[in-house]
Amino acid sequence: MPTISHKGRNMPESPIRKLAPFADLAKKKGHKVYHLNIGQPDIKTPEVAIEAVKNIDLSIIEYSPSAGYESYRKKLAHFYQRQNVNVNSEDIIVTTGGSEALLFALATITDPGDEIIIPEPFYANYHAFASSTSATVVPLVSTIETAFALPNIDEVEKLITPKTKAILICNPGNPTGYLYSETEIKQLAGLIKKHDLYLIADEVYREFLYDGDDEHFSVMNLDDVQQNVIMVDSVSKRYSMCGARIGCLVTKNKQVLATVMKFAQARLSPPTIEQIACEAAIDTPQSYFDEVISEYKSRRDTLITELNKIDGVIVTKPKGAFYCIAQLPIENSEDFAQWLLESYDLNGQTVMVAPAAGFYSTPGMGLNQVRIAYVLNKQDLITAVNILKEALLVYNKK
Amino acid sequence: MPTISHKGRNMPESPIRKLAPFADLAKKKGHKVYHLNIGQPDIKTPEVAIEAVKNIDLSIIEYSPSAGYESYRKKLAHFYQRQNVNVNSEDIIVTTGGSEALLFALATITDPGDEIIIPEPFYANYHAFASSTSATVVPLVSTIETAFALPNIDEVEKLITPKTKAILICNPGNPTGYLYSETEIKQLAGLIKKHDLYLIADEVYREFLYDGDDEHFSVMNLDDVQQNVIMVDSVSKRYSMCGARIGCLVTKNKQVLATVMKFAQARLSPPTIEQIACEAAIDTPQSYFDEVISEYKSRRDTLITELNKIDGVIVTKPKGAFYCIAQLPIENSEDFAQWLLESYDLNGQTVMVAPAAGFYSTPGMGLNQVRIAYVLNKQDLITAVNILKEALLVYNKK
Repeated sequence: MPTISHKGRNMPESPIRKLAPFADLAKKKGHKVYHLNIGQPDIKTPEVAIEAVKNIDLSIIEYSPSAGYESYRKKLAHFYQRQNVNVNSEDIIVTTGGSEALLFALATITDPGDEIIIPEPFYANYHAFASSTSATVVPLVSTIETAFALPNIDEVEKLITPKTKAILICNPGNPTGYLYSETEIKQLAGLIKKHDLYLIADEVYREFLYDGDDEHFSVMNLDDVQQNVIMVDSVSKRYSMCGARIGCLVTKNKQVLATVMKFAQARLSPPTIEQIACEAAIDTPQSYFDEVISEYKSRRDTLITELNKIDGVIVTKPKGAFYCIAQLPIENSEDFAQWLLESYDLNGQTVMVAPAAGFYSTPGMGLNQVRIAYVLNKQDLITAVNILKEALLVYNKK
Repeated sequence: MPTISHKGRNMPESPIRKLAPFADLAKKKGHKVYHLNIGQPDIKTPEVAIEAVKNIDLSIIEYSPSAGYESYRKKLAHFYQRQNVNVNSEDIIVTTGGSEALLFALATITDPGDEIIIPEPFYANYHAFASSTSATVVPLVSTIETAFALPNIDEVEKLITPKTKAILICNPGNPTGYLYSETEIKQLAGLIKKHDLYLIADEVYREFLYDGDDEHFSVMNLDDVQQNVIMVDSVSKRYSMCGARIGCLVTKNKQVLATVMKFAQARLSPPTIEQIACEAAIDTPQSYFDEVISEYKSRRDTLITELNKIDGVIVTKPKGAFYCIAQLPIENSEDFAQWLLESYDLNGQTVMVAPAAGFYSTPGMGLNQVRIAYVLNKQDLITAVNILKEALLVYNKK
């Protein structure tokens, strides 16, 4: 048989998808499974976007421009400007999801063996994108004890080698919900300036902040390091349009943009119909977001309150996004997660959680942690956490 | 300034896009530009697909499964089976365009420096996808004198080194329109079996054959080398849905499929709405295809007849797809193509052609050739070729 590439063999498997067959089995047994593992919100897509699809006026579903429709890029730039994020339409290349923007960014700045520093725990697919382009992830350990804050900047600097090309952050973070302060972002900016690196910021959860005083500080507003900054964004969470696969890469660095454009041209264009939906979505009324944020805030509060009722659970209140990392009184969350699906039920119901080890790059980290997504309604969250509580008692008596 | 990767710098620029600014200038001068350079058909998308979009019944545009909707994969498998192509739904991963299928295939089987043999001239983006994954393209020269037939199989074998991982063909071919015979495909199969390589076949133009006796022989029907075969397909041309960005990767090799799946999971899913449109498109009546093929056949015949009227032009009749390579009585087709847009018009009209050098990997090849796409209606084709004829007279008298 012909061989598989090292790159392909080293690609991590999705830490969540590995459990999927066990969830299917639980469902086949007739058990209800509460999904605390997924990032697919149950929030409705704005009507303006759905209506734009229904009213589509095309006789040919043609290629769009490789950088995306100009009309969409212009509206998107205005959207950012209204949020006081320093973006013009010519700084934007529309991508097939935030995923593609990350892939293009890494391909543009790294060659095989180059290093990317990423605070961990981090979104598991960063590892996959780095594998795809043969770059190496260098984890910067952040801990649940400090609520996943950025470690002292000297600790970050120690990781920089001649092969380091970039620091990649997710702000607010998946899976931690951590929101980097303006001070932290500016510390990172000092470092990338000093060492001439890129700062890539995945800001797809920018709008999802739950504490009144908190403000999101975008890397696009780092005026003195604009040539070093790449922002990644997506409509997936903002408009609950995960399936649209529309994101963007934003930078003021013309050389980066020209190179990204070559990758963009090679794949021809982002999806046409979904882009039309996204352009319409920009007219979503503020009331939509107010309701969504208020709903997520109360889900977060409910989840954290309920988790804190369980003996031995350690969890910090996330400031943004819709995930948290919870440390459980167990040794191996992968074993526990599988057991929950395979061998446990409370009155015919169980829960699915994402083992956190897949969100760490350092071996042995996060073994007793899980990521919980609060994309279920409050009543379901209460029920699910109660199942978790009862399950832990049974599991630890085994 | 932080640096751009070698990979990024080495990515070829689209040979066509480089001319786009000159086309824009010509249009600003008020000139009409006949686009013989593009692969965007003017054929209408089937109504069933457009109607499926208009009637969409979703309140959330959710992720689809990473491998694509099961219902779509099942219908797609039936579609292939009706064409006597040996494909089951579990052999298919739905991708974001044929482009992504090619990228996934190359990432799955090559590490940096590994080699892929491709008959040239070839679709320019194969080079870009190889660059993305740091693989090396080894061109197999085919010539206009032999109508771009596969060279003697011994010539192919001479190119195989310990680093060779695959042979990649496009059948029928862009930019040549060449249709590989069953004999040629089986010769290649013998070679990949002997050297334990992959045969990747881009079959996105499978339906576009114009000569009654010709039949398309899919690599999926190579029974004795099924573990070595990867097929790439797309809806872009079949249903004139280039903007849908829906394709697929098909293989019987479970290890390849599992690895591709890891890349597919990392980018989450292909677009949701467009997949629904594609599923509906499978019900397109045969009469649609009959009309389309008949239209392209008469366009091809018209184009070739008109081109053969020009002194010094060498062109072979393409058997499939909707492109041909024409050799012109000039020295440098890039200069000529730019001159056509920048300095020439016939009664306020000019043409845009794609210089063929961008479709070759061997330096110096194809300099006096252009690729012509016959995606314009017959009258426009006649007008455009007449402009080309008059332009050549002026250009050669300069």
